[in-house]
Amino acid sequence: MPARPILIDCDPGVDDAVALLLAFAAPDALDIRAVTTVAGNVSAGLTARNACVIRALAGREDVPVFAGCTRPMVRAPIEAEHFHGESGLGALAFDAPARGPETEHAVNAIVRIVSEAVQPVTLVITGPCTNVALALLLAPGIADNIAEVVVMGGARSEGGNVTASAEYNIFADPHAAHVVLTMAPAVTVLGLDVTHQIRATAPRTAALAGLGGARAAAAANLLDFSSEVTRAWGQGEGAPLHDPATIAWLLAPHLFTARPARIAVEMSSPITLGHTAVDFHVTAAETGVRWVTDADAEGVFSLLNARMAP
Amino acid sequence: MPARPILIDCDPGVDDAVALLLAFAAPDALDIRAVTTVAGNVSAGLTARNACVIRALAGREDVPVFAGCTRPMVRAPIEAEHFHGESGLGALAFDAPARGPETEHAVNAIVRIVSEAVQPVTLVITGPCTNVALALLLAPGIADNIAEVVVMGGARSEGGNVTASAEYNIFADPHAAHVVLTMAPAVTVLGLDVTHQIRATAPRTAALAGLGGARAAAAANLLDFSSEVTRAWGQGEGAPLHDPATIAWLLAPHLFTARPARIAVEMSSPITLGHTAVDFHVTAAETGVRWVTDADAEGVFSLLNARMAP
Amino acid sequence: MPARPILIDCDPGVDDAVALLLAFAAPDALDIRAVTTVAGNVSAGLTARNACVIRALAGREDVPVFAGCTRPMVRAPIEAEHFHGESGLGALAFDAPARGPETEHAVNAIVRIVSEAVQPVTLVITGPCTNVALALLLAPGIADNIAEVVVMGGARSEGGNVTASAEYNIFADPHAAHVVLTMAPAVTVLGLDVTHQIRATAPRTAALAGLGGARAAAAANLLDFSSEVTRAWGQGEGAPLHDPATIAWLLAPHLFTARPARIAVEMSSPITLGHTAVDFHVTAAETGVRWVTDADAEGVFSLLNARMAP
Amino acid sequence: MPARPILIDCDPGVDDAVALLLAFAAPDALDIRAVTTVAGNVSAGLTARNACVIRALAGREDVPVFAGCTRPMVRAPIEAEHFHGESGLGALAFDAPARGPETEHAVNAIVRIVSEAVQPVTLVITGPCTNVALALLLAPGIADNIAEVVVMGGARSEGGNVTASAEYNIFADPHAAHVVLTMAPAVTVLGLDVTHQIRATAPRTAALAGLGGARAAAAANLLDFSSEVTRAWGQGEGAPLHDPATIAWLLAPHLFTARPARIAVEMSSPITLGHTAVDFHVTAAETGVRWVTDADAEGVFSLLNARMAP
Repeated sequence: MPARPILIDCDPGVDDAVALLLAFAAPDALDIRAVTTVAGNVSAGLTARNACVIRALAGREDVPVFAGCTRPMVRAPIEAEHFHGESGLGALAFDAPARGPETEHAVNAIVRIVSEAVQPVTLVITGPCTNVALALLLAPGIADNIAEVVVMGGARSEGGNVTASAEYNIFADPHAAHVVLTMAPAVTVLGLDVTHQIRATAPRTAALAGLGGARAAAAANLLDFSSEVTRAWGQGEGAPLHDPATIAWLLAPHLFTARPARIAVEMSSPITLGHTAVDFHVTAAETGVRWVTDADAEGVFSLLNARMAP
Repeated sequence: MPARPILIDCDPGVDDAVALLLAFAAPDALDIRAVTTVAGNVSAGLTARNACVIRALAGREDVPVFAGCTRPMVRAPIEAEHFHGESGLGALAFDAPARGPETEHAVNAIVRIVSEAVQPVTLVITGPCTNVALALLLAPGIADNIAEVVVMGGARSEGGNVTASAEYNIFADPHAAHVVLTMAPAVTVLGLDVTHQIRATAPRTAALAGLGGARAAAAANLLDFSSEVTRAWGQGEGAPLHDPATIAWLLAPHLFTARPARIAVEMSSPITLGHTAVDFHVTAAETGVRWVTDADAEGVFSLLNARMAP
Repeated sequence: MPARPILIDCDPGVDDAVALLLAFAAPDALDIRAVTTVAGNVSAGLTARNACVIRALAGREDVPVFAGCTRPMVRAPIEAEHFHGESGLGALAFDAPARGPETEHAVNAIVRIVSEAVQPVTLVITGPCTNVALALLLAPGIADNIAEVVVMGGARSEGGNVTASAEYNIFADPHAAHVVLTMAPAVTVLGLDVTHQIRATAPRTAALAGLGGARAAAAANLLDFSSEVTRAWGQGEGAPLHDPATIAWLLAPHLFTARPARIAVEMSSPITLGHTAVDFHVTAAETGVRWVTDADAEGVFSLLNARMAP
Repeated sequence: MPARPILIDCDPGVDDAVALLLAFAAPDALDIRAVTTVAGNVSAGLTARNACVIRALAGREDVPVFAGCTRPMVRAPIEAEHFHGESGLGALAFDAPARGPETEHAVNAIVRIVSEAVQPVTLVITGPCTNVALALLLAPGIADNIAEVVVMGGARSEGGNVTASAEYNIFADPHAAHVVLTMAPAVTVLGLDVTHQIRATAPRTAALAGLGGARAAAAANLLDFSSEVTRAWGQGEGAPLHDPATIAWLLAPHLFTARPARIAVEMSSPITLGHTAVDFHVTAAETGVRWVTDADAEGVFSLLNARMAP
């Protein structure tokens, strides 16, 4: 099977960085047409820089990076520096990347790349959905050449991680999430329900670090930082593997369970802003949307280790 | 220990009826000062009638019944006849009760009974919170003589049962739930998270019916009806023991786990109306509110059987 | 024509006080069954006290006063002491009234008085609608014996006086206003659109004071205080005759123009909370609601002077 | 004084068409860098086509037209064909324009033109604000080279024209209006309060038609169509000169009165969606926003006639 054409829209961010490392390490399966970045976990300048840092670390200078939106569509910006460190890459030490992002705006790049693709493109979103939402608003016709959008975001059974009922990525730009969920032809959403099942416990990151090599070391370093913050915030042992879950889903969907759903995003109430109301009383055909409910955590870490090995 | 003075505000309703049977069967522990009724699962006329039916069945004519509000505080009424049968008591056969409700309005009765009580009264709410909310608005001072309010309502991990994010009792009068949560001195909330753990499976109701006697037979009959509807609506095997859980909590709190929480009720958005946003980042002293997270289902059914035995 | 049975629900408040003085001075036309008071412009204790002060000043000890709700139905309380002075009666000097309010709660009094009346009763509301809303919720059947509810509240052409789009009485308890507008059989609403047309300019209050007598002096004193505050807040010359407009409407409807309307009250958005959306694309039969658009200000002041003359 | 560089973003629409005719007729004062179009009164395809029709009619093929967004940012689309006729140009007869819109998307054109301009550009918006909002989101830096945004939209004293409290342009994309009001450096808003003062009465359009020439004939034809619809909808005699008021404001600001304001747009509540809450308790420096309160209608029509004369 030829590699699947994908575009990764992200806000690295420690777990975005691990997701990128995993995706960059799977050229046989994923044909990454671009990495686009957006303001989110840290500012837009930092997320673009960080994507370039990880690209250099992975030796994948063949993949262009495009910097995108610097703020959410409607609501006031909210960053998450306390979870990702000042640089956005936790405690990772790195040199300024030799090559920076392209000059084209991420939104225009998404429109162009999807429009020009011979085969429908899969979009992976691991940050606020701003870039993809604006691309769909500028050029609704690209929906016809999108295979699927895979979004890390939302919370159902787990409550939220930024407010009682909302997960950060959706909370940070609920209007954009709404646009993606209503305009994209097919969307698979991996929220806290599933990512909280995939915990980067100390033994797991030790095993990862033990593989040797710069990539595995960086991934372990990033996850360990995240675990420390997770513990400090009383959110349990082992950082949930939020963003990398999207790449794992693309590489090994058999490790996950997904259900057809209708997902409504709360865009107005101050109490529930960013809440994802997940209704399972639908068929896949009715909405084109799936909510991922379960993951085989051991399987995901095996996959991660296999790809990170030097 | 003397029996604890309580007042039960309900909308029977099949599971309210089981809750009443359980409470009526525990005179050693619960000194029931009144049963008050409210429009909810079925209309106000039927809930008052049904409370009298269950009272007669339990032989507890010593407890006065007061009929209360016929509609929610602000939102349009929404009933749940499809879950409770036309009569509100499922398939239970019964005679018209010889004695009806008192003439005093439930809201005034709540104000009077709580005001006059020598010892603080515990209020149990197993329907929409309308009556208690209006009592608190009419006479905020009664809060000083309320020991605790125990509410069946809300949903966190389980999603909702009436919309994707809302449970029926809160959805039916979210403004009243808000008033109770903000004006009562202490509130314990048992939502779907815990009631879905206590399932009236076929073996359990068979054991209950096998105890013999009219009470156990009625309780088993009501729960079997509820299980059928639950199955038909794709909500799993065995009716969740929603309302009886509140009485079980009073009789045997060691069977439950509760956490201090701040609970905000969504009152405005059409998407999330009635959602309970449960935030655990508080201490009990800050809010006086607890959210019940877990139950020992076997323990609850043992308790039910022990009390329903002839 | 026999005097029309009315009940005045108010939160005096300087302009409520003038409204009471006007109503008390018209026993030939208005048969005042009760004055009920509510928290609003100042606290519930002060509004009840102030109603008794004005009753004493008017020599109308035959009218019972009932104290009511101490806070709005749902939202957090908001007072308006800066507009009404610390006592709620501006700069008026007064003795503590010899007779206080009755012991019955205003809400129960409203239910009882309306229920018992031989002839349908007109309710006048010049404060937040809390009391009447709760009465309707407790006893929806009283709607059958309400002739009309006349409400001072709301804003359309004039913008708001407490926020850009909301008038104080509706803003202070929007949920109660919604209940009254949807449950009462007929409602006439006098908002800022009309009250801003009836200004207590300096010449007008001078003429009023010139009539002599305690009542006219008190009315002029109250209005002059209000005019000073109005000027200080940049809301023009001469206090708008908000609350007295309701009594003027009852005494001399020919001085006003009213249009059938549908009035929706904003209950949720922080931006527009308490806004009255007035839609004229209806017939009177469809809604039973009228919005007063215009007043003959000279006519209203002639009426006031005629009634206040010793 | 050299002509002021402007860009007109519109959804023609009969009154947009008159606004374009007026602007095209003032090359001495207005240096029109582009006309951009958006879905609104009619679909995006028709608004782009109609802009080209009017450009041809005005003989201004030097001005490029760019087609833009086909739907609002977040909410569901709402057109206004009943007010603008099936073509969007009322009863105007016209040939298909020889030259169509450019290939560049309106949003990218706005970003490019504003970025490249030597002198700050004034943006005129006479439709939903979608295009300009997206341009600001894509390239927030263009705010530094925007002189002012002049928006036709909103309602305060006049109530709404599409719902009780909302005007069409804001109602059609409230989120975009919010983005423009919060991200643009200076905004002047002409809502129904002022446009309802400028009525295209029969004598006025007769005088306009009497000038002779294709432009004046077209303008009179468009306004007469609009007046008929206005009358049919019970909105008074003579179409309000909504969109042309923005151009009149640019050409002759002395004909208008504007006040510093803070304008909040209601984005969530179904009752008040699109309402503009106009708060005058600010200084110009605080918000950069002005609300136009009054117009000299005779002056505006004199201006229109002077410019439309052959």
